[in-house]
Amino acid sequence: MPLARVHNIAVSLDGFATGEGQSLDTPFGHAGMRLMEWFFPTATFQGLSGDRERQEVSAASDPDDRFAAQSFEGIGAEIMGANKFGPPGWQQDPEWRGWWGEEPPFRTPTFVLTHTPKPPLEMSGGTTFHFLSATPAEALDAAFAAAGGLDVRIGGGPTMVREFLAAGLVDHLHVVQVPILLGRGVRLWDGLEGLEAGYDVDSVTTPSGVTHLTFTRR
Amino acid sequence: MPLARVHNIAVSLDGFATGEGQSLDTPFGHAGMRLMEWFFPTATFQGLSGDRERQEVSAASDPDDRFAAQSFEGIGAEIMGANKFGPPGWQQDPEWRGWWGEEPPFRTPTFVLTHTPKPPLEMSGGTTFHFLSATPAEALDAAFAAAGGLDVRIGGGPTMVREFLAAGLVDHLHVVQVPILLGRGVRLWDGLEGLEAGYDVDSVTTPSGVTHLTFTRR
Repeated sequence: MPLARVHNIAVSLDGFATGEGQSLDTPFGHAGMRLMEWFFPTATFQGLSGDRERQEVSAASDPDDRFAAQSFEGIGAEIMGANKFGPPGWQQDPEWRGWWGEEPPFRTPTFVLTHTPKPPLEMSGGTTFHFLSATPAEALDAAFAAAGGLDVRIGGGPTMVREFLAAGLVDHLHVVQVPILLGRGVRLWDGLEGLEAGYDVDSVTTPSGVTHLTFTRR
Repeated sequence: MPLARVHNIAVSLDGFATGEGQSLDTPFGHAGMRLMEWFFPTATFQGLSGDRERQEVSAASDPDDRFAAQSFEGIGAEIMGANKFGPPGWQQDPEWRGWWGEEPPFRTPTFVLTHTPKPPLEMSGGTTFHFLSATPAEALDAAFAAAGGLDVRIGGGPTMVREFLAAGLVDHLHVVQVPILLGRGVRLWDGLEGLEAGYDVDSVTTPSGVTHLTFTRR
């Protein structure tokens, strides 16, 4: 059975997966890039970003990379929330084509949850954005149907991940706990009392100082 | 310089250091003992509880015990919040002498923060409870004065630890992150944005599945 999987969602110690004040210039709000610093030196990120970044892959990031790379293995479709596709108000901008340029890293059908659907956007490299207004369960059905028997990535942001978790739709969850305190923003964990009961939970700390938590459905 | 130290404060993934509904029978509310399960098999806990418990020390708990034991090293006084000393309403019960029987494990002067001070209680084994209404800074002054040049333990619960952290009074903080989701209760981390900036932070995951986080003042 194909699985619904969440990968590489980073949270602060106080549980915020993005900061306050998201905008075009600050996609993570006041958190800046602090939740993703563990990710940038990994081979996986460097491979995604190609020539656009000059940062070197750090060997010390190998333990993090083992987790980061899993996000791209065996995925046939992605579902993302509206806030991952663009800054507030992108729905009113007919020119907006996502944060990722003309060749987004998804390379699969990618379903964007929004209350204002529009025609699909076919990008280079295999990504086609589909815009749909749907419940989590409906969106997952559509994504599995498009995934060709592979798994579906529940891509975030935190609000939609929380909704999929609350609906019991997530088979595998990988969270990266970053030891900073953001104080404000969007919480990942609210309203999920007892979530761990349905999962085997593993924790691994890496040299970068983050802790990788994986929840695997029993 | 003697230090103000916090040890062995356990939090759920969603940041709750105690559950909802604390009472005489449920000192951690609906959390039960789930936040402390990593602690019970340690040599440190077994040594504290003496004959009262029959649980065996588990060798697998050694990595946890290295953290647990530090709580009792070099401490000359403790400060605790009212909710650690007793269930809601203990101030109105003249017979209440704390949760720990006639020989409490503190073995030092122990300052209980309460808005209804009363005369000290001298217990067996070196613990004397002093009851005082004071700000965190005032309480810390009193505790250092009583600690004979040793460190002071900021003993919890989470509300008072958060107040001491917010006031910048904590030199060393040890938090045990337990991979469960409590959903409700008393949060440790609220209102502490940017706390990590003043500390070196370390994270270590142990075989029990918890992650020990230590914040050491720079």
